Amino acid sequence: MQTQQPPATAPASASAAAPTPLPPPPPPAETLIFPPSNATKLTPHLPPPHLQHNDQDQNQDPPRRPFVTLTFATSLDSSLSLAPGTRTVLSGPQSKAMTHHLRAHHAAILIGVGTAVADDPGLNCLIAGARSPRPVVVDPRARWALHRDSKVLQLVRAGQGLAPFIVTAEREPPAGVAALLAEHGGRFLFVEAGPETGRFRWADVFDVLGREGLGSVMVEGGGEVINSLLAEPECGLVDSVIVTIAPTWLGQGGVVVSPPRTVGEGGRPSAPLRLTGVEWHPLGEDVVLCGKILR
Amino acid sequence: MQTQQPPATAPASASAAAPTPLPPPPPPAETLIFPPSNATKLTPHLPPPHLQHNDQDQNQDPPRRPFVTLTFATSLDSSLSLAPGTRTVLSGPQSKAMTHHLRAHHAAILIGVGTAVADDPGLNCLIAGARSPRPVVVDPRARWALHRDSKVLQLVRAGQGLAPFIVTAEREPPAGVAALLAEHGGRFLFVEAGPETGRFRWADVFDVLGREGLGSVMVEGGGEVINSLLAEPECGLVDSVIVTIAPTWLGQGGVVVSPPRTVGEGGRPSAPLRLTGVEWHPLGEDVVLCGKILR
Repeated sequence: MQTQQPPATAPASASAAAPTPLPPPPPPAETLIFPPSNATKLTPHLPPPHLQHNDQDQNQDPPRRPFVTLTFATSLDSSLSLAPGTRTVLSGPQSKAMTHHLRAHHAAILIGVGTAVADDPGLNCLIAGARSPRPVVVDPRARWALHRDSKVLQLVRAGQGLAPFIVTAEREPPAGVAALLAEHGGRFLFVEAGPETGRFRWADVFDVLGREGLGSVMVEGGGEVINSLLAEPECGLVDSVIVTIAPTWLGQGGVVVSPPRTVGEGGRPSAPLRLTGVEWHPLGEDVVLCGKILR
Repeated sequence: MQTQQPPATAPASASAAAPTPLPPPPPPAETLIFPPSNATKLTPHLPPPHLQHNDQDQNQDPPRRPFVTLTFATSLDSSLSLAPGTRTVLSGPQSKAMTHHLRAHHAAILIGVGTAVADDPGLNCLIAGARSPRPVVVDPRARWALHRDSKVLQLVRAGQGLAPFIVTAEREPPAGVAALLAEHGGRFLFVEAGPETGRFRWADVFDVLGREGLGSVMVEGGGEVINSLLAEPECGLVDSVIVTIAPTWLGQGGVVVSPPRTVGEGGRPSAPLRLTGVEWHPLGEDVVLCGKILR
């Protein structure tokens, strides 16, 4: 197997009519191992097995909304990263392997466009022999400048991942991106945005994913996506919560997970959002919290 | 033992020259039990036994700064409470018992004046047969209106706690409070505040507590106190960190634990504050994190 590759030499000015040859695939990916003793602890918090993989029967009527797992890693001060657009490695190697175990057990992995732009993420599964989930990027205005060298497409060409579905409210998304998606097996999915907010209703996003036959979705980030799913009433769409906490404070000014405050009777803050069926599993230096949102 | 008590009947206009009779002691306090199986897990994170109790040899030269344990309970979004001045019950009964176990193993318990004013806390130890720590309130401008019915003084009169030491920068603190403290066995301790900030240096506060013979201090809150002790270089004074995390999000706008952000080379945020020697102990629905600040 090829492990060295020459630099891409295609001129930047190559026209669309004369596509550059596909760059060589990236070197073999690292593989991760998540031991069965740890995996067993997560089993009760995963989607039912028949919803874990792609392409369930698409002709259900009505289509079923996918099982939704909200999962992310924070510092003790609930930060995802030191600053917007900054990737901050918080959790340790065991927690990384856990994330990939979760990816192996969900049909799709969903992130917001901000994370896609900032991180150029692979969104595949690095556990040997495991299936990769379908990447889903929520991008109302179709601003993700996906290109041939985006990591997610490199991985498709290397046979190590699936092409993304981009959920957008643009009726005519950029043709170049659409063609690139089609070439790799992905596509744009249209969802109507709220006329005033320009934002999606999460129920609409999950409905369209259900219609695509995706039985389960793990939502990984970033902050805006997570906080909007922890808000009422959207949090009612979340079936399982798996949070990794690292023993670190990132300090004030980070990208913080904290749901919007709602106000109840008498102007007082309403009751906090609480998890039930809680389990805490130490994992290396980190801890993994599993539970369901208490309704 | 008396369990019912008449309401206090002394007229509000009673003059200082004719002090009102002491009100009857409060009903017997609840007692808490912290099982040995849990206690054992905390032992490595406590002060050495000879520093756990009051009145170590006061004539040490130079006096030793106390062993400092920073301990508090937060939500998943690192909030201590829903809003300033609001007491929010976050953690469960086992975590409460743990807090009192910690109180039994420290010579002093320290809070800021904001918490003293907001909570009217007892600051004693409810574990049967255990000693209560010396309450220490950090109050630079001597604004805590301690009065005869403050819970901490009620507990002193009931033989269930010690009178507070109030650390202040006021050279002439209110005479009424000073007399009340003296009557119950407490006193003001003078520390010079920074000439520009009006704040104490933590080293000065701990020095004065060391000179009072207090071998160990657990710092319980509130947010301003905790964040200032997580800042550089003050965090170097902290010997042990014990954080309880409850599986709840309080939402944006709470009183958040997050150290001030410092900026390193090139204007980038400096490295996060990290714990080492980390242990996570699930406790009821909560988790308890123990560690030391990595230097």
